[in-house]
Amino acid sequence: MTKSSPIGVFDSGIGGLSVLRQLIRFLPYERYIYLGDTARVPYGNKSEETVRRYGGQCAEFLLSKGVKMIIVACNTVSAVALDSIRAMAGEDIPVIGMIVPAAGAALRTTANGRIGVIGTRATINSNAYCNELLRLSAENHVDVYSKAAPLFVPLVEEGMTRHPAARLIAEEYTAELKEKGIDTLVLGCTHYPLLSPMLREILPEVSLVDSGEQASVTALRLLAESGALEDERNEFIMKPRVEFYVTDLPATFHEQAAIFLGYDAESPKKATLGE
Amino acid sequence: MTKSSPIGVFDSGIGGLSVLRQLIRFLPYERYIYLGDTARVPYGNKSEETVRRYGGQCAEFLLSKGVKMIIVACNTVSAVALDSIRAMAGEDIPVIGMIVPAAGAALRTTANGRIGVIGTRATINSNAYCNELLRLSAENHVDVYSKAAPLFVPLVEEGMTRHPAARLIAEEYTAELKEKGIDTLVLGCTHYPLLSPMLREILPEVSLVDSGEQASVTALRLLAESGALEDERNEFIMKPRVEFYVTDLPATFHEQAAIFLGYDAESPKKATLGE
Repeated sequence: MTKSSPIGVFDSGIGGLSVLRQLIRFLPYERYIYLGDTARVPYGNKSEETVRRYGGQCAEFLLSKGVKMIIVACNTVSAVALDSIRAMAGEDIPVIGMIVPAAGAALRTTANGRIGVIGTRATINSNAYCNELLRLSAENHVDVYSKAAPLFVPLVEEGMTRHPAARLIAEEYTAELKEKGIDTLVLGCTHYPLLSPMLREILPEVSLVDSGEQASVTALRLLAESGALEDERNEFIMKPRVEFYVTDLPATFHEQAAIFLGYDAESPKKATLGE
Repeated sequence: MTKSSPIGVFDSGIGGLSVLRQLIRFLPYERYIYLGDTARVPYGNKSEETVRRYGGQCAEFLLSKGVKMIIVACNTVSAVALDSIRAMAGEDIPVIGMIVPAAGAALRTTANGRIGVIGTRATINSNAYCNELLRLSAENHVDVYSKAAPLFVPLVEEGMTRHPAARLIAEEYTAELKEKGIDTLVLGCTHYPLLSPMLREILPEVSLVDSGEQASVTALRLLAESGALEDERNEFIMKPRVEFYVTDLPATFHEQAAIFLGYDAESPKKATLGE
């Protein structure tokens, strides 16, 4: 493990590419290995035991590639399997999930202590964000309002982030949160940052917290403090350095990856995990 | 100078508060001293020699407060006086300006090599962004299109960031850049990030580069690498730790500060510089 070792990023599918995009933004000089477990996506409706096993296999694959850090770019795995992945990675390889960085940012952002959380049904039902928010806020009183927003994932994957139908659905999902007077909303799913422009219009007074962005800031801080940050290069970098792996290649991978990443990804290689 | 020393931030006026807001976002545990030279604002139409002298006095004030880093949250000073401020600060106290971090980010963001820059007339006339973009891009071909947007500052200070008149003006300022096919636009003035929501609507295909955000990422990286980052605190932080200084207290300071910072700032103290 040296500072030129890659950073490993994994998700059950392609949603984690929105996290990779943020990582590239804050840590542009790094090499990345991205793994999407597209053969077994989605994890959200599977048992904790299965999610823990799948997450462990993803982490194992990245560790076998010699990564210096693991970003769990999946809210479901972050909610249930972070401890076991940390145990696998050992002390020298930090493991960063989606939940703690975003919860901290939400607490620093709110002025009125009313925080909304949207996510997939699995993430909302796990109460992971709510628990973390209440743990971090300690004696200070905060009100957390959670809402599952299950249609957001398929809408984003269909590229309908500006469609009037998406707007109607977003208005419905956020109506109750708006009524409760939240001033901060955690986007608790890696697909949701693509809906930010629309959500900003619907909730102009509310600050949005992007879990991928917050995890990237944490990654920058941790790597820099341990002297493991790749050197800056003063060159004109047209394309980030990413190796993509998937467990299954869906026909729409390239179109969808471009939506999440903002550029055309190279063709992914096939990865085989445990099972 | 210890890791609990404050970070010094200065600007000719209150525009630098948008930079402070980004710093707080990425470096929430730090203490800050913000100095606005409101008695002599704006710097943009003054001679280089005067800007260098004023900038030096601001830096001197912050150094006398024992800061561990100086953020020059003013594009004009960054363009003409960074070297002399670096010489004053010495090797142990890093000085970060607005231009280099934003130029680097623009080069990493563009896919087609066509980059727009908007700023005050002084910043655009200085060619500082254009020169830095061409220097960093080295042999790679980039086209830089610059446009002064002088009305944006007073529009932001009047709180008219969503006004139809502001939109008309923004459409006019950006029409030529749009025609040139830019895919990346550097917001080369600390007031402009407040116009981002509107600019995103007018230029939906263009990535905006916020110089304050990029400078904050650079600050995080530098402090972390040198072990000078303040410890994280797991507490519920309602208000950032900032001491505000101004050289003159304008009647509208509090309203304007709230627009830039996103929260109500404490009352500023009076600072006396040079003369």
